Amino acid sequence: MSFLDDNLSPLRWQDDALLLLDQRLLPNEEKWLTLSSYEDVCTAIRELAVRGAPAIGCAAAYGVALGLRKVGPGGMARVHAELLSTRPTAVNLSWALERMRKVPLSFEALLAEAHAIKDEDLHACRTMGALGAPLLPDGGILTHCNAGALATGGYGTALGVIRAAVAQGRAIRVFADETRPVLQGARLTAWELQRSGIDVTIITDSMAAHLMATGEIKGVVVGADRIARNGDTANKIGTYSVALAAAAHGLPFLVAAPWSTVDLACESGAHIPIEERSADEVTHHGGRRLVPEGVRVRNPAFDVTPARYLTAIVTERGIAGPPFVESLTLLRDKR
Amino acid sequence: MSFLDDNLSPLRWQDDALLLLDQRLLPNEEKWLTLSSYEDVCTAIRELAVRGAPAIGCAAAYGVALGLRKVGPGGMARVHAELLSTRPTAVNLSWALERMRKVPLSFEALLAEAHAIKDEDLHACRTMGALGAPLLPDGGILTHCNAGALATGGYGTALGVIRAAVAQGRAIRVFADETRPVLQGARLTAWELQRSGIDVTIITDSMAAHLMATGEIKGVVVGADRIARNGDTANKIGTYSVALAAAAHGLPFLVAAPWSTVDLACESGAHIPIEERSADEVTHHGGRRLVPEGVRVRNPAFDVTPARYLTAIVTERGIAGPPFVESLTLLRDKR
Repeated sequence: MSFLDDNLSPLRWQDDALLLLDQRLLPNEEKWLTLSSYEDVCTAIRELAVRGAPAIGCAAAYGVALGLRKVGPGGMARVHAELLSTRPTAVNLSWALERMRKVPLSFEALLAEAHAIKDEDLHACRTMGALGAPLLPDGGILTHCNAGALATGGYGTALGVIRAAVAQGRAIRVFADETRPVLQGARLTAWELQRSGIDVTIITDSMAAHLMATGEIKGVVVGADRIARNGDTANKIGTYSVALAAAAHGLPFLVAAPWSTVDLACESGAHIPIEERSADEVTHHGGRRLVPEGVRVRNPAFDVTPARYLTAIVTERGIAGPPFVESLTLLRDKR
Repeated sequence: MSFLDDNLSPLRWQDDALLLLDQRLLPNEEKWLTLSSYEDVCTAIRELAVRGAPAIGCAAAYGVALGLRKVGPGGMARVHAELLSTRPTAVNLSWALERMRKVPLSFEALLAEAHAIKDEDLHACRTMGALGAPLLPDGGILTHCNAGALATGGYGTALGVIRAAVAQGRAIRVFADETRPVLQGARLTAWELQRSGIDVTIITDSMAAHLMATGEIKGVVVGADRIARNGDTANKIGTYSVALAAAAHGLPFLVAAPWSTVDLACESGAHIPIEERSADEVTHHGGRRLVPEGVRVRNPAFDVTPARYLTAIVTERGIAGPPFVESLTLLRDKR
């Protein structure tokens, strides 16, 4: 049993405001933003100060409480609409807003529900860790983007599974894709795992298949932004490449996500909206231009991994295996 | 027939020195280095001022001539050894040095042979273009790294095939992987194709599979650093991922390389040495740190794509198809 610091959370309520660890500045600076209005929350989500599907859901829930305080009951339609419009792909955002909509319109009740969403998310992550850890092989485990404490209420989804396996004394070493263009792997996963004393090696996204061929990577675990009824999974751009490489090498490919990420109303990946973000994320880094002026750029922020490439989906309700349309329905009916 | 500027070459001999377009500074600055000694050439190859397997061969050939002028016939063993040690993966380097070794030890003869190597490489690229262009489908064509004029005596291998297709009026638009960590795609392929008026869109390496799934990419053409007898192909890290994605989508995956890249003495990809470069290339960009201090990094500069993922290898001697061990032997015996 290792001694791990796994109490990191990227958001907390304090002095009537939402405090948010600004993930755009990590790993170079640890700065907490103070968000006092729902507009602040919208901006923070849109500009990636907070990111990761479950953490976006948590932040939006606090945004609803802040919204009521500012505009009162009559303005709540606008508050919901603005929060919902911040990012299109992660379903946890609309899931959290739907849940907040059922709460009586008092600030205390809304705040209590936001706390509950965050606490339940943390608890779900710990449960996913316990359920998913036995599915990880020993040795090198690849993850993509950051599906860690920073992306959730705490502990993490994919990194939660890794945390649980490491806490059990398993011989796990993590390979983390740097995850261009925003470098959530190089910046956030590296920072978070180093802080927790978990062995991590950063690679460029282009190296994963090679390290599978050399035998250094033995399995993959990633998070998700939306899982369709048939198991098709939207996650950070590049996840699909990793899944294809894992399949070609016969390696397990696990998705870990709270039940709030499963969208049973969405038939397949073809119906998941894929956010296209600003070209600047690709063309510039740290104010420095990487691509010649005038050259066109694409920047889809997510891709869809077809269900046939998934070994299993780990949720806090249990583990779903193929065929996912059946296993996810069983988990829906389980309480 | 488009009007294209396709007369770019990254190296030329002038006033008793080798002039080299410094590819570390592109696209922000077009600066020509003056290399007056073989040590200058070694440094330029090692530090990527010149890169691309065929261009490295050309530069090394001029390095031999500069070496004789400096150290005389008695020092040539050292000149050859130092040039050979600069980079391990591209076989064109040892191929060019082998060829220079057969030339009488006079400066004029060595210089004439270096010119011949460069001129033949340019000619080979134009021939590959003519042979390979009919194999490209119309629509979006993906390339990885820079296998262009900048990587050769001129015109390019993979980009030569694209140049030829575009010159024939074909409806080709190029998608270029940015190619982390050194960004040869974002910096060099973008610069070179923009300069030639060829439609180019930069994507991160992680986006290629997604754009195959959406139907925007219809085929792939890449260069090579070493092709083994069985067709296994070493090329810039990330090429293998692209090949796996192309195979999963049933898209043609073409390798274009001069015959000097084919190493029939090398049985398979397992025998190709893979260069591991400095961690700084991954951890820093433009002096800015991307990865937290103290976090481990891997940086293999190449990977091996198994022959079974290749649709065809385009050389100036003709097109090889599977089984490559047979088709490459036939091309060897052709003159």
